[in-house]
Amino acid sequence: MTIKTPSDARWLAAAARLALRGRPASSPNPAVGCLIVRNGRVVGRGWTQPGGRPHAEAMALEMAGDAATGADVYATLEPCAHQSPRGPACTDRLIEARPARVVIGQVDPDPRTAGQGIERLHAAGIEAVLLGCPHSAASLAGYLTRAAFGRPHVTLKLAMSLDGCIALADGTSQWITGEAARAHVHSRRALADAILVGGGTWRADSPRLDVRLPGLEDRSPARWVLTSQPIESAQTIAAPADIAAIPAQYLYVEGGAQAAASFLEADLVERLEIYRAPILIGDGLRALGGLNLAELAHAHGRWQPVETRQLGADTFEAFARTR
Amino acid sequence: MTIKTPSDARWLAAAARLALRGRPASSPNPAVGCLIVRNGRVVGRGWTQPGGRPHAEAMALEMAGDAATGADVYATLEPCAHQSPRGPACTDRLIEARPARVVIGQVDPDPRTAGQGIERLHAAGIEAVLLGCPHSAASLAGYLTRAAFGRPHVTLKLAMSLDGCIALADGTSQWITGEAARAHVHSRRALADAILVGGGTWRADSPRLDVRLPGLEDRSPARWVLTSQPIESAQTIAAPADIAAIPAQYLYVEGGAQAAASFLEADLVERLEIYRAPILIGDGLRALGGLNLAELAHAHGRWQPVETRQLGADTFEAFARTR
Ligand SMILES: NC(=O)c1ccc[n+]([C@@H]2O[C@H](COP(=O)([O-])OP(=O)(O)OC[C@H]3O[C@@H](n4cnc5c(N)ncnc54)[C@H](OP(=O)(O)O)[C@@H]3O)[C@@H](O)[C@H]2O)c1
Ligand SMILES: NC(=O)c1ccc[n+]([C@@H]2O[C@H](COP(=O)([O-])OP(=O)(O)OC[C@H]3O[C@@H](n4cnc5c(N)ncnc54)[C@H](OP(=O)(O)O)[C@@H]3O)[C@@H](O)[C@H]2O)c1
Repeated sequence: MTIKTPSDARWLAAAARLALRGRPASSPNPAVGCLIVRNGRVVGRGWTQPGGRPHAEAMALEMAGDAATGADVYATLEPCAHQSPRGPACTDRLIEARPARVVIGQVDPDPRTAGQGIERLHAAGIEAVLLGCPHSAASLAGYLTRAAFGRPHVTLKLAMSLDGCIALADGTSQWITGEAARAHVHSRRALADAILVGGGTWRADSPRLDVRLPGLEDRSPARWVLTSQPIESAQTIAAPADIAAIPAQYLYVEGGAQAAASFLEADLVERLEIYRAPILIGDGLRALGGLNLAELAHAHGRWQPVETRQLGADTFEAFARTR
Repeated sequence: MTIKTPSDARWLAAAARLALRGRPASSPNPAVGCLIVRNGRVVGRGWTQPGGRPHAEAMALEMAGDAATGADVYATLEPCAHQSPRGPACTDRLIEARPARVVIGQVDPDPRTAGQGIERLHAAGIEAVLLGCPHSAASLAGYLTRAAFGRPHVTLKLAMSLDGCIALADGTSQWITGEAARAHVHSRRALADAILVGGGTWRADSPRLDVRLPGLEDRSPARWVLTSQPIESAQTIAAPADIAAIPAQYLYVEGGAQAAASFLEADLVERLEIYRAPILIGDGLRALGGLNLAELAHAHGRWQPVETRQLGADTFEAFARTR
C-alpha cells in the first residue's frame, strides 16, 4: 500500500464515469471502468461490454498495448482473479502487461476474487493500491447490492406537485411535469435493467415503460408488475421482498402510491428520485400510500440529498438512503 | 430622463436592501431606502423610521449635510410631494439640498405624489431619473399591493415532508422541520405586520405566533384568525377576502391546510414559502385542502421560483405568483 495522492482519486473518479457506459448492459457482471495512464496521459480505457465481456481491464490493456508496461492502471473494481471459459483472469492479463501500479476503487465481493486479485498482483511485484473511492462504489451500486443483499438496487421515482400530489382527485395526471422531466425519466429508465409498477398503475394506465429517446430504444428495461393477479406482457412479483427473483442489478420503480409505499415500508429503496412541478393541486391523489410510521422521529435521518437539477420549470432531486 | 447606467441599478439595489430595515415598522407608510452618493462614496443613507417618519430621504439628507449638494440621490420610491403636519415634503428638502440627480426606483402610487415629486424636481432644475428597479418594487411589495388592491401582500408558509405532509395521520407535527428552519420562520414573522392561521390550527395548537429570536421579540406581528367563531386574544376575519380590513402591509399566513387552500383558491397569495424536510410520511395530514381545480392546466404557470436555500437538513424555497 502507498500514500494515496489526490490525482489517484481523480483518475478513479474518471474511471467511474466511464463505467456508467456499461450500465446496465454488463449485467449480471459488474459495470467496471478502467483507465491506463502513462506520464499523465491516458493510453488505454475500457468499460465492461454488453453481457459482461470483454472486461474493462481487457479492453483498456488491448488499447494501451506496450504502453501499459510501467503505466498506472485505474480500475473501479478489483481485477478478477479467476479464469473463466470466456477468457483469462484480468489479474493474469495485468501481470503479463506489467504496469507499475494498479489503483483499485473497490474490493470485489465475488468469493472467487475477494482480495485475491490484489494479493496476486502484489505477489507478482506489481504495486496494488486499494483506494476507498465513493464514485467507484456508486457506479457499482447494483452489483454491490446484489452481492450484499441478493437483490437489485432499487430506485423509486416520484413525480409530483409542490404539495405532493401525483394527479387530480379524478386521476388526471397528464401532465404534471414537463417535457424535460419526462425525457429525463426515460434516460433513467435506460440505466435500469428492470422496471416495475404496481398492479393499480398497470391496469389504470397500461404504461409502456419503455425508453423513448432517439438511439436508446433498445435500452428498454424488462417490465415487472407488483400484483397478486396474472398479467400479460409483463412478469410479476407478489410482494416487494420478491425482487430477489428479478434478474437485474438496477430496478427502477415508477409507482403508483401503494406500490411505492410498500417498497418504502419494506425499506427496500436505496435511491429516491423526485420530479417536482411548480404547481399546487390540493386535494389530488397523493404520491404515497401509508408507511405505518409510529413516530415522526422514525422518518428522520433516512434520506441524504445527493443530486439536484432544474429540468425546464421542474426540479429533479435525488436522495440516497443512509445506511 | 438620462441614460441608465449599470451603476445606477446597483446603487438602487443597495438602497432596496437598506429599505428592508424599515419593514414592517414603517407601516402604514412605505418602507423606503435612500442612498446619497458623491464621487462613488456613500455620504448619506436612510430608511423609513418606525411609524413612517422620518422618511428615508430626510434621514439620508441629514447625514449627508452639505455633501448632498451636487451628489446623486438614490431612492427606492419617488420622494413625496405633499407637505404633512409631521414635516415638509421630501421633494422640497431635496430641492433645498440641490443634488445633481435623483434616481428613483418606483413611482409613488399615492395620488398626492404620483409623478409630481419627479415633476417638481425637474421644474427646480434637478435631474430626476426613473429607473424600473425590480429590487425597489420587491422591497415595496406590501405598500404597492395595498395601493393597487386595497389589501395586504400575502405570504403563505407551508412546512412539510418531501411527499407534502404536514403531520402524521394522528396530527403529530413536532417536529417535521429542524431548528434552523423554525428560526427562519421566526425571522419571516418579524418581516410581517400581521400573521394569520385558520380556526382549526388556533384551536388545535393554541399557537403563540410570536417572534422568538433574541433582540426581535418586540417584532411580533398582530395575530389574526380566519374563523366564523369568536376568539379571545386574536382578531378575526370570516373570509379570505376580508383581509382588506387587516391594517397591515404584509400578512403572513401559517396554515393550516384549509385556511391555506381558501387563500389560494381566492388567488390572494403573492408569495409561497415552502420549508421541506428530507422525510417521507405517506398517509399523513396534507399541506393543502381542496383548491377546486377543474383541470391540471389551470395549475401551471402560476408560481415562479425566486429563492432557495438550505436550512440545516431542510430546504427553503420561495415562489412568487406570476401576474
Ligand atoms: N405521477 C406519477 O409519478 C405516477 C406514477 C405511477 C402511477 N401514478 C398513478 O397512480 C395511480 C395508481 O396508484 P395506486 O396506488 O392506485 O396503485 P399502484 O401502487 O400502482 O398499485 C397498487 C397495487 O399494487 C399491488 N401491491 C401494492 N402493494 C403490494 C404488496 N405489498 N404486495 C403485493 N401487491 C402489492 C396490488 O396489486 P393487485 O391489486 O394487482 O394485487 C395493489 O392493488 C394511477 O392513477 C397512476 O396514474 C402516477
Ligand atoms: N406544519 C405546518 O406548517 C402547519 C401549519 C399550521 C397548521 N398545521 C396543522 O394543521 C392542522 C389544522 O389544519 P386544518 O386544515 O384542520 O385547519 P385550519 O386551516 O387551521 O382551520 C380551518 C378553519 O379555518 C376556517 N376557515 C377556513 N377556510 C375558511 C373560509 N374560506 N372562510 C371562513 N373560515 C374559513 C374555519 O374556521 P371555523 O371552523 O373556526 O369557522 C375552518 O374550520 C393542525 O393539526 C395544525 O397542527 C400545520
